[in-house]
Amino acid sequence: MQHPVHALLLVTKPGQDDAQQTAREVQLWLREREVRTLLVENSLDQDNLDLNGFVPDAALVLGGDGTLLAVARKLRRHQIPLLGINLGHVGFLTEVEEEDWHPSLEQLLAQQGRISQRMALEFEVKRGDRTIHSGWALNDVVVNRGRIARLIGLDISIDSQPVGPIRADGIVVATPTGTTAYAVSAGGPLVHPELEAICMTPICPFMSHIRPMVLDAGHRIRIDITSHSAEACLTLDGQVGFDLLPGDAIHLQRSAFDARFINLHPKAYLDKLRSKGYF
Amino acid sequence: MQHPVHALLLVTKPGQDDAQQTAREVQLWLREREVRTLLVENSLDQDNLDLNGFVPDAALVLGGDGTLLAVARKLRRHQIPLLGINLGHVGFLTEVEEEDWHPSLEQLLAQQGRISQRMALEFEVKRGDRTIHSGWALNDVVVNRGRIARLIGLDISIDSQPVGPIRADGIVVATPTGTTAYAVSAGGPLVHPELEAICMTPICPFMSHIRPMVLDAGHRIRIDITSHSAEACLTLDGQVGFDLLPGDAIHLQRSAFDARFINLHPKAYLDKLRSKGYF
Amino acid sequence: MQHPVHALLLVTKPGQDDAQQTAREVQLWLREREVRTLLVENSLDQDNLDLNGFVPDAALVLGGDGTLLAVARKLRRHQIPLLGINLGHVGFLTEVEEEDWHPSLEQLLAQQGRISQRMALEFEVKRGDRTIHSGWALNDVVVNRGRIARLIGLDISIDSQPVGPIRADGIVVATPTGTTAYAVSAGGPLVHPELEAICMTPICPFMSHIRPMVLDAGHRIRIDITSHSAEACLTLDGQVGFDLLPGDAIHLQRSAFDARFINLHPKAYLDKLRSKGYF
Amino acid sequence: MQHPVHALLLVTKPGQDDAQQTAREVQLWLREREVRTLLVENSLDQDNLDLNGFVPDAALVLGGDGTLLAVARKLRRHQIPLLGINLGHVGFLTEVEEEDWHPSLEQLLAQQGRISQRMALEFEVKRGDRTIHSGWALNDVVVNRGRIARLIGLDISIDSQPVGPIRADGIVVATPTGTTAYAVSAGGPLVHPELEAICMTPICPFMSHIRPMVLDAGHRIRIDITSHSAEACLTLDGQVGFDLLPGDAIHLQRSAFDARFINLHPKAYLDKLRSKGYF
Repeated sequence: MQHPVHALLLVTKPGQDDAQQTAREVQLWLREREVRTLLVENSLDQDNLDLNGFVPDAALVLGGDGTLLAVARKLRRHQIPLLGINLGHVGFLTEVEEEDWHPSLEQLLAQQGRISQRMALEFEVKRGDRTIHSGWALNDVVVNRGRIARLIGLDISIDSQPVGPIRADGIVVATPTGTTAYAVSAGGPLVHPELEAICMTPICPFMSHIRPMVLDAGHRIRIDITSHSAEACLTLDGQVGFDLLPGDAIHLQRSAFDARFINLHPKAYLDKLRSKGYF
Repeated sequence: MQHPVHALLLVTKPGQDDAQQTAREVQLWLREREVRTLLVENSLDQDNLDLNGFVPDAALVLGGDGTLLAVARKLRRHQIPLLGINLGHVGFLTEVEEEDWHPSLEQLLAQQGRISQRMALEFEVKRGDRTIHSGWALNDVVVNRGRIARLIGLDISIDSQPVGPIRADGIVVATPTGTTAYAVSAGGPLVHPELEAICMTPICPFMSHIRPMVLDAGHRIRIDITSHSAEACLTLDGQVGFDLLPGDAIHLQRSAFDARFINLHPKAYLDKLRSKGYF
Repeated sequence: MQHPVHALLLVTKPGQDDAQQTAREVQLWLREREVRTLLVENSLDQDNLDLNGFVPDAALVLGGDGTLLAVARKLRRHQIPLLGINLGHVGFLTEVEEEDWHPSLEQLLAQQGRISQRMALEFEVKRGDRTIHSGWALNDVVVNRGRIARLIGLDISIDSQPVGPIRADGIVVATPTGTTAYAVSAGGPLVHPELEAICMTPICPFMSHIRPMVLDAGHRIRIDITSHSAEACLTLDGQVGFDLLPGDAIHLQRSAFDARFINLHPKAYLDKLRSKGYF
Repeated sequence: MQHPVHALLLVTKPGQDDAQQTAREVQLWLREREVRTLLVENSLDQDNLDLNGFVPDAALVLGGDGTLLAVARKLRRHQIPLLGINLGHVGFLTEVEEEDWHPSLEQLLAQQGRISQRMALEFEVKRGDRTIHSGWALNDVVVNRGRIARLIGLDISIDSQPVGPIRADGIVVATPTGTTAYAVSAGGPLVHPELEAICMTPICPFMSHIRPMVLDAGHRIRIDITSHSAEACLTLDGQVGFDLLPGDAIHLQRSAFDARFINLHPKAYLDKLRSKGYF
């Protein structure tokens, strides 16, 4: 953090009283230190956070990894750094445990944090000539079967070169940050977040020896929905779904907008992997 | 086939003109040979086939593997043998290719077929004390996430012994017949249909080294839905879905009703695996 | 155990003083109860145990799973039941922990044990027309690459039907008992020991979607060594190696000799899997 | 190729007459164009190629991928670019098919080639305080079990942070170039060669959910041999073995010496993957 924090956005997980309670304590504590704040709830229905003209230097997110992923998505164009206070279970992305918010905010105001940039993905869904949907994800964009357990047909190409058709449960396109999430369940590798890479992992491919692939971040991926007999869906960061139709084409690439996180006590990545049980 | 065929049920894949056309040709051909027939469509909306008092000695199914699976399910209590005429793509279960129906039916009437029994699964879904759903499957019963790609929590036990909780995309419980279908995509083994066994394969388990398990067919499996944050669904033979809620318990076991197929030219199982591309 | 125990063979892991010590205590204790004993060491160099005319009703094996596997192999033709006293780490097959030998032997003498039979494998290695090696294994027969990490070429057939050539690190042919050992590392399923089955699992196959296969125990497997550029080896129960040459053919099938174990407190299989950390 | 080719080293696969024959034709052809040549055989026994003072601008390698890997290793300190003429089967690394050598060498002399750098690995084996072995590999350094199929114990750390102990068949540490070789058989991802990364893939880990990891190339890996009951070995590029003892520590990192290959008709990587059957 090179510039001081005068204005801080506080975002809470919706419908959680203790998040609200902690947020208000934090707000009081910050007011005493002459930091202006805006407190908003991360409403699940909305694609944006309404800041009403408030221009924050950073955002404090009170919730779990899920809330942090959602807030990162909604604030992506603001390019402000985020600090997560973990009220959830896993807390892979959140930096601070709830009971530690006092000393952590003191560090933040003392400009002791370091900002780490994490690359993200953006995508467009084309139906015929029209772009019918687009978005941004910090962890992963998944093309997956619907609620019936029935394989879907996909045709994949990278930089206009065909990788070929597969029948599968779907495919995970993940950032390095996202490889610890769904991708690893699907059999993908853990990719160190310092690499600028895109990791593509097929989910349960049928009669295929296609492997997970790690591409450098300059590649563009295209996924065409070829199956007519099963429902397909696009899922962002395990949170938001969008129904796909046969013939739809999903275009994916690295986003121009990185996510920025505040690291107060830079725990090494491997250390974090181990403490969270990855090995 | 130990007893002669005097009455034959003909079931067609719905909405397919060529199936109808072939069925009518078959019907004429059978009438000349004094075999009574009933022609019905395998309606996707109905759980049963209405035979209107007709008592067939066997059933001829014109469609792909999907239609054959559905008809096997709907006729399970009749315990009549089925013969599939393949109008579909894969045709792993269907015995006869469309162009070969003449000689095949001659074989059938000459009682040259052999009946192979295939074990099946039955299940109940309990919500609290009530059984809210039950059914039968020839290939597999799958408990799976809904349309959002988000892991679900499951608690598995076998014969009342805990196997433990997993977070996964779901779990496939398959008969040996069904191991060539979804189970193999999920990383399960191919199990020879002569074995009386149940194969349980977790789908994309998260941070778990749980392995596919092959149990002898006397075991009973229970799967409890523990996750509150993701939708779960039960899928029968890749065809029929049923929405599950947190707290639901799925009880699975071998069914008292086997499926019966007519084998006219008993192609060895391994031969079939190879011709269909499994190795 | 239907007939009383008058003569007991004691086999110890070689070069282990505490095994010797415990064995002598057991021997004294048995002598007081008028049970005749013979104490032999399981020499690693020898393929047989020299019983010198002693005819035991059962054998007590003091060591870990490895010793028990070796003794089962060496005594296979005697068809006497084995009871393992665990002095090793894992103890998946051994029934009794070292400190519990007193009450366990009392149970044994009171004929309270139940005998469980476990199917085994036998194999022959043919070089041209000659059988150059043969043997028996309780867990698994593995055809594997030598000490250089370099894939070998194998050609597999089952009951004379081709499964096809693979390039791989090797292949594990396991009994249900053996599926908890090397097979599970190679990606194979756990197969319940009540099933009479053979589980074949390729090890690290290259560009192949070949899956582990579970066959009923009547099948015969043949593995031909096709590669000329890498060393191949046959390994029995993870213990004994035999060098193979290009052109060698390994023939495998269920053995006529089962292994027999004494179960004193029949711990359910799943319970054992869980206690040993399989899930 | 920015500077002209006046002196060319020709290296042939040993004991192969057609390689010798082609090499001599090439030599004649080059002499007519006033390019000096030295023809040497890639002897399997020697760790170096004896150039006798000859200073080549590039090296032409007549053989398969194996020969090219070996020559790259032996010439690594010369930092000259290599061009492979494929006399082998796979030819993933070799650029030119045998029948195309004429036009390809014309392109080479016309300086139409592009040089692609491929990162490599270097390692040291420490026994106590002494470095008892060291080396360089373009594809992979593998720590693996010996000829008996028996898991070995390894303790892995990255940049002095513990990843933890595993029992496995071994571990593959691969460059991006090497991920298409042994790593992919062991379940690792394909890593695009433009990424500067190290890919670590455990081989058949026992009761572990450890995943393949892709690290950026600045990381250092240490592997300690912990098992006393099984032989361990180190394999370079699937070619050269070195016996390890319990207590040995293998230290791995990116080498200061990259390999350099001449690309005459830069076939895109994905195109090559597809043509070689990876998908």
